[in-house]
Amino acid sequence: MNEEDQEFWGEVCQELIKKSQKAISPLIGSEDGGEIVKMGADGTPTTYIDAVAEKKVVEVLEDVERPLTLISEEIGEIVVGDGPSEAILVVDPLDGTSNAVKNIPVYGISVAVAPVPPDQKSPLTIQDIQMGMVKNYATNELYTAYKGKGASVNGKKIEPSSKQNLEQISMGAYVYRMNMGKIETLCKSVRRMRILGAVAIELAYVANGTYDAFVDVKDNLRMVDVAAAKLILEESGGIITDRYGNTLKGKLKVLEKTSLIATCNDRIHGEIINILEGI
Amino acid sequence: MNEEDQEFWGEVCQELIKKSQKAISPLIGSEDGGEIVKMGADGTPTTYIDAVAEKKVVEVLEDVERPLTLISEEIGEIVVGDGPSEAILVVDPLDGTSNAVKNIPVYGISVAVAPVPPDQKSPLTIQDIQMGMVKNYATNELYTAYKGKGASVNGKKIEPSSKQNLEQISMGAYVYRMNMGKIETLCKSVRRMRILGAVAIELAYVANGTYDAFVDVKDNLRMVDVAAAKLILEESGGIITDRYGNTLKGKLKVLEKTSLIATCNDRIHGEIINILEGI
Repeated sequence: MNEEDQEFWGEVCQELIKKSQKAISPLIGSEDGGEIVKMGADGTPTTYIDAVAEKKVVEVLEDVERPLTLISEEIGEIVVGDGPSEAILVVDPLDGTSNAVKNIPVYGISVAVAPVPPDQKSPLTIQDIQMGMVKNYATNELYTAYKGKGASVNGKKIEPSSKQNLEQISMGAYVYRMNMGKIETLCKSVRRMRILGAVAIELAYVANGTYDAFVDVKDNLRMVDVAAAKLILEESGGIITDRYGNTLKGKLKVLEKTSLIATCNDRIHGEIINILEGI
Repeated sequence: MNEEDQEFWGEVCQELIKKSQKAISPLIGSEDGGEIVKMGADGTPTTYIDAVAEKKVVEVLEDVERPLTLISEEIGEIVVGDGPSEAILVVDPLDGTSNAVKNIPVYGISVAVAPVPPDQKSPLTIQDIQMGMVKNYATNELYTAYKGKGASVNGKKIEPSSKQNLEQISMGAYVYRMNMGKIETLCKSVRRMRILGAVAIELAYVANGTYDAFVDVKDNLRMVDVAAAKLILEESGGIITDRYGNTLKGKLKVLEKTSLIATCNDRIHGEIINILEGI
């Protein structure tokens, strides 16, 4: 993405983040926000607060001067503006919905941008993302990355931790509503575990060293929800793959799912893969 | 506790909370705060931020006009002032230390007060606590309870949720560095799980319906760390026992440990006990 495009789409992202945050703020900690209002395009229920967040995102994008495609879990995929889309915006309008409804201070937005080359035929994948922003609305921390240019939080460069031993790490891992299997061995090996309930923010936490790893082996994470955070983590210097150690290359489609092993470095990544494979 | 004592000790608690919060605020998110500076009276390492928080608590208590005993995990037990103590203050100066060091917005203080009758001979227990305050510093939510008078957050009355089915509950549960055993069945049964890493705040979350339950079966929780939150939960109308369903009655001593099953109501409590006992 050239400088001009980066600036243009960066401003679009900032604008939709600002306005969407403002739109949902009266609903934080409110039961009304948690009411289910419809089924999303991804087949999961949409709450009122999700719908408000997404509606504001669409409104902001309708005023953008260049044609684009929006991919978002509730509405699926829509084209905004006339002519071929110049970019795909992949948005999770509210990461950590249930936290927002309960006023647990870990919820926000995820926005990723993939420019569309004029002659593009095949569907874009998560590897085509060139800009990512994740914001925790409760703390106003904005994580940003541009491909090849590093990652930052509120303008300050970030990098993952340098932990070398599993016994020392803090790990986010989703371990409920599933058979534990080898994950139990992993949970017994780490220093500390968290389940904060907002995957994009928790991946950004690996990028800035708050976590040392984040693991989800259920193959049930939406690729579109992690699109921005994946770039942020990679640009910070961290590692992110699926549970088998494979590069993420899923299509930017609402029904595309993945597992994740995200770590501060190769060594911790290798140790986790070893445990999950059975050593 | 009569009205006058309640007012007196309530003001002492508010003062130490305010000053301790101010003292640690420069250390939030700082690596310096996480450095281990000594071993605490409870045999676990004390970090710099813990030490700063506790030092300020002691400073505030040294100015109190009435003699008291402070029980806190780092220093153990100290008598402040002259003459027989009129009250025991049970303080966890920093609940969620590692969150504070990492700037995960769930950390704060726990303060509980047990008045000491003039003729008291036997050691007081957690059942003697008559005032409890828990504050999440990151969000400025102050949970308060006075025995027999209900519980509130920032002055607003709170009550637990009315959930009736395990399949619908949000549960905090610590499931790492342990054998899962029957806890795996429990984790597979609930709607949602969190590990936020600040036990007093998470118990207060059951009191106001943010969580529906909190479970820790490791028998490794310090009684003094949960002393305030236990009263807050009970005064809100919630249920709290050890893992076997027994009333908590541990002594107010830094080495006293417990397990916990804290729930919104009897029904959810019974369902959790059934699973952990093997049904």
